[in-house]
Amino acid sequence: MPQAQAMSVLPVVLLGCGGVGRHLLRHIVSCRPLHANQGVSIRVVGVADSSSLLVADDVRASGLDDALLNDLCSAKSAGSPLSSLLARGHCQVFNKPEAMGKVIDAATMLGRTTGLVIVDCSATYDTVGVLKDAVNHGCCVVLANKKPLTCAYEDFKKLTSHFRQIRFESTVGAGLPVIASVTRIIASGDPVSRIVGSLSDPRDDLSGMDVARKALILARLLGQQISMENINVESLYPSELGPEVMSTTDFLESGLAKLDETIEERVKAASLRGNVLRYVCVIGSTGCQVGLQEVPKDSALGRLRGSDNVVEIYSRCYESSPLVIQGAGAGNDTTAAGVLADIIDLQDLFQTRA
Amino acid sequence: MPQAQAMSVLPVVLLGCGGVGRHLLRHIVSCRPLHANQGVSIRVVGVADSSSLLVADDVRASGLDDALLNDLCSAKSAGSPLSSLLARGHCQVFNKPEAMGKVIDAATMLGRTTGLVIVDCSATYDTVGVLKDAVNHGCCVVLANKKPLTCAYEDFKKLTSHFRQIRFESTVGAGLPVIASVTRIIASGDPVSRIVGSLSDPRDDLSGMDVARKALILARLLGQQISMENINVESLYPSELGPEVMSTTDFLESGLAKLDETIEERVKAASLRGNVLRYVCVIGSTGCQVGLQEVPKDSALGRLRGSDNVVEIYSRCYESSPLVIQGAGAGNDTTAAGVLADIIDLQDLFQTRA
Repeated sequence: MPQAQAMSVLPVVLLGCGGVGRHLLRHIVSCRPLHANQGVSIRVVGVADSSSLLVADDVRASGLDDALLNDLCSAKSAGSPLSSLLARGHCQVFNKPEAMGKVIDAATMLGRTTGLVIVDCSATYDTVGVLKDAVNHGCCVVLANKKPLTCAYEDFKKLTSHFRQIRFESTVGAGLPVIASVTRIIASGDPVSRIVGSLSDPRDDLSGMDVARKALILARLLGQQISMENINVESLYPSELGPEVMSTTDFLESGLAKLDETIEERVKAASLRGNVLRYVCVIGSTGCQVGLQEVPKDSALGRLRGSDNVVEIYSRCYESSPLVIQGAGAGNDTTAAGVLADIIDLQDLFQTRA
Repeated sequence: MPQAQAMSVLPVVLLGCGGVGRHLLRHIVSCRPLHANQGVSIRVVGVADSSSLLVADDVRASGLDDALLNDLCSAKSAGSPLSSLLARGHCQVFNKPEAMGKVIDAATMLGRTTGLVIVDCSATYDTVGVLKDAVNHGCCVVLANKKPLTCAYEDFKKLTSHFRQIRFESTVGAGLPVIASVTRIIASGDPVSRIVGSLSDPRDDLSGMDVARKALILARLLGQQISMENINVESLYPSELGPEVMSTTDFLESGLAKLDETIEERVKAASLRGNVLRYVCVIGSTGCQVGLQEVPKDSALGRLRGSDNVVEIYSRCYESSPLVIQGAGAGNDTTAAGVLADIIDLQDLFQTRA
């Protein structure tokens, strides 16, 4: 990209420093020359994990330096606490419960002045309060964490009340441009009638709850005022094989074989109709379902192989043949890349310096 | 989408009032309530066709009203000149050569104050000068017209010099989110190694030149400083069947059959290798080709049916399995929807009023 004249500076506080958070920090550091060339600079002023917050001494003046961010990633990978980085200077550590109060302090200070992006790469419901406070203070929000968008509808409404100030691409299909594409289609006045997606990572999500969260985010994006209890979720295992009734060992030794039997019958029956079974979410005008469905063998969903995600979007412009987005829908690297693209996409809301 | 507090007002001058331009105007009018709800308002201050410009009396104060825009679409569909709308009042008409000067006047007046979006839905090289002037005056640019981006590399560089102020989604794959997705991937520091696309409408483009223009735009987006003459374009017809040597009637009566014979042999040979033939563009690190290529039968490209476009994007995150975007890649409605999404996406650069 050609060189830009002015530089947008984006102060960032990162919540969550697991695999995705650490990849994000490494991407931010390694992309400095690229972003400078695009006229944007990310200033990481604070990083929180589940127990504490590491924050720059003066968040208005400068961020944590890149050497410190690299060391922070190494320390977290090695299981060391954030406080182990205090010796590096120019930073402070606050432990729970003070930590979240300090994030809100930063949001208050920066939200309506330089601006601030709160990036949530955690996997907890605990951040909702801080995020809503941050929105109240004029901050932007970027989420890889699905939970703040899938609890009470009122919370979703609050978090998305300034829709240009929030991005949450990586909550659905990791870095795949699903949310961005649906948002574009809606903005163009092309009404989305249906979204069908294969968005699961079957190793992690036999119960379907993770897919249901993604489906809920898509449904709410389409304007549906629904909650998790309104989604019809078909678990891949019957209740008699569930974790409350059967140990994991028993499930793997005998349960799984029993499960395979039932599924095999459904696979055969579908095949007779020229269909295949896929575990999908369907968001339509009449509601939202998650479960095994028969889909045509030669549709994008039917042809799906391996661990790719696929999303079919139906609208006036994509009526007979849907808009299809397909690719890797999981992984720390890909998810972090989606988060970083979201942060960069907020740049026009930030002050520029010559 | 939740209600926004403030309203961004985007003044727009439209160049080109054919099928795409008229669809765009109709979309703008019909989306007023939706956009108001999203906190954005589009003010069409001028519309130009190939011979003249209809412009609001005072572009700083107000745009052409919606009833006039609807009448303008009807008049243009019926073949009437823009001057037929003068009786409606509050507008003026300027004919060539004065018209483009008046567009630049508006750009000068609005570019660095309220802001202005110049939207090019024409299909001519003639707009390049006006667009470059508009960029100099701080205006934003949205293109459905491929030609300004595919002439001299210096022009591309100039037009994209403020990269956040230009959008050109509809130049590649109509409304499909190809440019937006590639831009996101680049911004996230995930290096794109290869793009393979089936982007042709074979009825219009047996020579491959239209696909070559799209390939050039993608290649330049990836940072390649190349021009049309650097693209290796394989025409679907040999030179002895070209329009200079053979009339269209002769081509349809005898040429086509001869062409089919040659192609059929290649189809058979490919099939023996488990492949199928597709007319694709390939943008890689070593250059850019457009032509018939063998692709695996079970790849996204190989499975392509009907008139859909498909684009495969390979990068670090999408290495073994590409990010695939597929769907209708032509049509006035879809192209105009892409243009409208681009305009809306510029909203953060515009002044808000309470």
